[in-house]
Amino acid sequence: MAESWSFLDTFEPDFRPLVVVELAKGTKEETIEWFTKRIVDKKANGGAQLMVKPLATENGDENIYLVGASHLRLLLGAETVGLVKECNDNSMRTFTYSSRKTFKDFADDNHNFLTMAECQYIIKHELENLRAKGEKMIPGYPQAKLYPGKSIVRRLLTSGILVQIFPLHDREELKKLRHSWYGQMKVGYQPLDEIRCYFGETIALYFGFLEYFTFALIPMAVIGIPYYVFAWEDYDKYVMFATFNLLWSTVILEVWKRMCAIMTYRWGTLLMKRQFEEPRPGFHGVLGINPITGREEPVYSSIKRQIRVYLVSLPFVCLCLYFSLYVMMIYFDLEQWALDYHEKNESNFSNLMLFVPSIIYAVVIEIMNRIYRYAAEFLTSWENHRLESSYQNHLILKVLVFNFLNCFASLFYIAFVLFDMKLLRQSLATLLITSQILNQFAESLLPYWLQKRHKKRMKKRMCSLKTDMDLPLVEQVKLEKEMGTYFGTFDDYLELFLQFGYVSLFSCVYPLAAVFAVLNNITEIYSDALKMCRVYKRPFAEPTANIGVWQLAFETMSVISVVTNCILIGMSPQVNALFPDSKVDLILTVALVEHLLLAIKFIMAFVIPDKPRDIQIKLAKLEFESVEALKQQVRATDMYNSEK
Amino acid sequence: MAESWSFLDTFEPDFRPLVVVELAKGTKEETIEWFTKRIVDKKANGGAQLMVKPLATENGDENIYLVGASHLRLLLGAETVGLVKECNDNSMRTFTYSSRKTFKDFADDNHNFLTMAECQYIIKHELENLRAKGEKMIPGYPQAKLYPGKSIVRRLLTSGILVQIFPLHDREELKKLRHSWYGQMKVGYQPLDEIRCYFGETIALYFGFLEYFTFALIPMAVIGIPYYVFAWEDYDKYVMFATFNLLWSTVILEVWKRMCAIMTYRWGTLLMKRQFEEPRPGFHGVLGINPITGREEPVYSSIKRQIRVYLVSLPFVCLCLYFSLYVMMIYFDLEQWALDYHEKNESNFSNLMLFVPSIIYAVVIEIMNRIYRYAAEFLTSWENHRLESSYQNHLILKVLVFNFLNCFASLFYIAFVLFDMKLLRQSLATLLITSQILNQFAESLLPYWLQKRHKKRMKKRMCSLKTDMDLPLVEQVKLEKEMGTYFGTFDDYLELFLQFGYVSLFSCVYPLAAVFAVLNNITEIYSDALKMCRVYKRPFAEPTANIGVWQLAFETMSVISVVTNCILIGMSPQVNALFPDSKVDLILTVALVEHLLLAIKFIMAFVIPDKPRDIQIKLAKLEFESVEALKQQVRATDMYNSEK
Repeated sequence: MAESWSFLDTFEPDFRPLVVVELAKGTKEETIEWFTKRIVDKKANGGAQLMVKPLATENGDENIYLVGASHLRLLLGAETVGLVKECNDNSMRTFTYSSRKTFKDFADDNHNFLTMAECQYIIKHELENLRAKGEKMIPGYPQAKLYPGKSIVRRLLTSGILVQIFPLHDREELKKLRHSWYGQMKVGYQPLDEIRCYFGETIALYFGFLEYFTFALIPMAVIGIPYYVFAWEDYDKYVMFATFNLLWSTVILEVWKRMCAIMTYRWGTLLMKRQFEEPRPGFHGVLGINPITGREEPVYSSIKRQIRVYLVSLPFVCLCLYFSLYVMMIYFDLEQWALDYHEKNESNFSNLMLFVPSIIYAVVIEIMNRIYRYAAEFLTSWENHRLESSYQNHLILKVLVFNFLNCFASLFYIAFVLFDMKLLRQSLATLLITSQILNQFAESLLPYWLQKRHKKRMKKRMCSLKTDMDLPLVEQVKLEKEMGTYFGTFDDYLELFLQFGYVSLFSCVYPLAAVFAVLNNITEIYSDALKMCRVYKRPFAEPTANIGVWQLAFETMSVISVVTNCILIGMSPQVNALFPDSKVDLILTVALVEHLLLAIKFIMAFVIPDKPRDIQIKLAKLEFESVEALKQQVRATDMYNSEK
Repeated sequence: MAESWSFLDTFEPDFRPLVVVELAKGTKEETIEWFTKRIVDKKANGGAQLMVKPLATENGDENIYLVGASHLRLLLGAETVGLVKECNDNSMRTFTYSSRKTFKDFADDNHNFLTMAECQYIIKHELENLRAKGEKMIPGYPQAKLYPGKSIVRRLLTSGILVQIFPLHDREELKKLRHSWYGQMKVGYQPLDEIRCYFGETIALYFGFLEYFTFALIPMAVIGIPYYVFAWEDYDKYVMFATFNLLWSTVILEVWKRMCAIMTYRWGTLLMKRQFEEPRPGFHGVLGINPITGREEPVYSSIKRQIRVYLVSLPFVCLCLYFSLYVMMIYFDLEQWALDYHEKNESNFSNLMLFVPSIIYAVVIEIMNRIYRYAAEFLTSWENHRLESSYQNHLILKVLVFNFLNCFASLFYIAFVLFDMKLLRQSLATLLITSQILNQFAESLLPYWLQKRHKKRMKKRMCSLKTDMDLPLVEQVKLEKEMGTYFGTFDDYLELFLQFGYVSLFSCVYPLAAVFAVLNNITEIYSDALKMCRVYKRPFAEPTANIGVWQLAFETMSVISVVTNCILIGMSPQVNALFPDSKVDLILTVALVEHLLLAIKFIMAFVIPDKPRDIQIKLAKLEFESVEALKQQVRATDMYNSEK
């Protein structure tokens, strides 16, 4: 083992800072020494073989370290994390150091073969895989226990010694990216490949989805406009619009899978093997044996977790749902009161008053969503999931259900209990527009403004004490470490999910929703881009091959929307007029149509292949080659054995 | 490459015949010589390195050869096909020759380490992978073209030179298996592991499913009996029965996936890597380059195939469906006529006459199913699918749709057009029972009787001319080569699928269906076992990890049955009495309940994990180990490279 890494010993002088490690103020000297020694130590001694440099700040009480690595080290790390890159023959292959010459753009002196985001991901991976060997605790902190194999960085994080780890921005690159992303005032596709190079696949895939979804909504919007302009109210036109919407929403979700496969194949993540998942930082338990790895690590009984999920979380969620419905009923009382007021004193003011309850309700919904979000995070964390992915799934499920009810319950109530189509249309418009405005404001513009103010203050302070040449980097680190942390794409997808609900659930009542959604998404692309580039710390790249559980969420929404639209059409007076004698026939017809549409939906989802044919062939080719290679290898081993 | 197989050269005298190869009478001498030479030739020369012995028959005009292999050859073959076996530490691992000592029950002189079925599967695999090298055609048959890489055996089969290849029965083992399977007159579980050892995983899994399904039906049958005995007609009891049925059918299908995972893990097929699929024997096309393998082989345009599928097959299937509906209408006319006759001349005879149309219809359905089956096979073969799996999927889909309509259309018509529950019950009973009797007869008893007669005749002839000591083997081969060929589990699953339809689609009308299904399945187990052991040639073992597309088919049926049962309950007079004023409320309630049940179904299918926890852990452990091993290997390669 030692030999393989020995050729890294030669010192490389060109240190390029990639990742910032901030330790708490007043961290003990012995801890810092131990931690930095582990980072630079040889692999053979259980180190990460990276480079560390302390950041010289004007007042020395801050423990900020810059981590980098030699080019060779990064290439070996790329092999460890299983990076997939493009070869000279345009196929995608898992990178290995020994086959490095076969990869496109590889040259021993080309330090741009790995993107900066990839380098930072490798360093993060290597840091997180620094594991305790003999240590029983973190030196200097007897209460921070360790056991063999425990990730040191995770323990340092949970015990508060390590404040944060984040990757540095590359100002040159960022400037270029900003320019091509939202700098020019021309309309065009986003530079997704560049975004992916800079921010990683998860974020690029979100922007890819946002763009795709916006384009996919355009046909709906275009068809929806004449309904509003000419005030079409014909039965057959509505049915046509709704039917088109339903089939269209199935098609776009299926086609997205194909687009996603094309993109992630190009980026290499479609082929990337899933790494073995470590316990998430917050996970705790009694020390036991992990049945999978055979290693000693904290173990938490799955039954205990199930009890927490089903006996605490589930009832709590139900209670919250009930509360949300209760608030909804209050809203309807208010609405009624506003209506009465308007009838009694008709004026411009009273006319405006009609919209007040809806706006208040929209604001309350947003507030409840945010409060509930904290509760859900707390509960899911308390459920003590071992894996980050399982934590995420439970959190997403909780938040989705509540948000769905919170946002749409009133609309369902208006549509299917009050049967008031005019009120439905009005509420839908108010909810949609209010929530869009609130979101844009709370998500991007407010943080951007705060960030700008903070930056100005920082700059003023900086300028007053010019010290040495290193300042630009020091300044950059100081600026960036104070920036907000981007907590992943969850909120962004959630927003799109709810928007999709507004557009599709009641599409036949309010065809204009798609227009608003398109307009919102165009500004959303810009404000999200602004957010990523200007407001937040640079996030670590996360390789991913698809949008995960969101695909399922969107598909579920599209199934629900078939049901709601069929009912709405069935309730419309035009359709009712077609069945003057018998309401029974009407309902039976609607039910039949609904079942047919659902059947068509499922058949379409089944028939449309998830991956385009050329990607399928490329994947099959790779699989075939790996099977052939295995056979060759077996033969080689046999030969080797027989030579012995 | 040559070295690795060189240690096989030493001659092993113990020849155990495993597989029989029958060439056509009058095959040219040069062809036989070439073919047998290829079979025994060294791997290095492109041979299969197996052993061949001609079978000495009394009249020498039959070209029958026995193929076997040395123990060592079989072990190397086991590695090639990727067999998974149990290790000494009870984990399942892919067998490799170099790690052979770590496997349970392995000893160099233990020739039972591989089961006979596995040996035969290996030999089949090796024979099918005999590939043309320089040959442009089969020697002696210029019209039978070859190209480099074409499977010789497949070409020999399609050109009619090779009549058949089949594995030999092991009379000792078969006797033991028969005894433990259906020999004893005690009720118990089937010896699935022994069946799997003898017949392979696909067949064992079918019998496993049949047994599981029968047990799963018992609760339905038990609950169904009192409904019949006490003639319960209460609304709430029916609703309870139907609800139980619907949820139960979801549960049993989900639990089956878990059972299946447990079994196939034990058998090793859950872990077996899918082999690269070769073109199916009937596939033809212009010689081109396969984009996946880069090899020269026939290529057929996917667009042409799509045209054949959508412009010929699809309209044909629709036409057949229409015809089937037309026949159904004739049946109803007959039914009406019988009823009129019964009313006019009431007698025992006329009472019997009432059942005649149903019975005729049941027979006609069976006949139409069988004719359509041939048409579907012809069409699917004409569609020219490259892969056997794709051929099978298209065939199954065609046959399923037609069978479904053919068997259930009349019941749907009676239930939802005629609204005649009494007729529905009667038709259901007649169809179910007639089809069960017909199936049992046509599938097992008739072939068994034919086989028995043939055997007797053969024996008589054999006894008259006793020649040498080799006779028992000669006799066995002669007997077995005349036996029918078992064409896979398709028909058996189809029968179960239709039975599941009879039981679940109208379960709330005829609770007794489950009782008949259970009774039928118990005899079905015995008659199918008889069929496998006595009637058919031994089939080659086929490794498989699940029941494939049938799982989907059963799940679809269970979704449809939710809809039908909800409608049936909604139509019952008891439920109608609950909503005396408004039919609209009734229908809305039924629709609501149906959607709720469907939602519960999908949530249950989502929540119940497909694999039991311990299997999940074992799989995760293996994956973890393989990732770790890969890391070790990378390090070793580095070391090796740096040593150089």
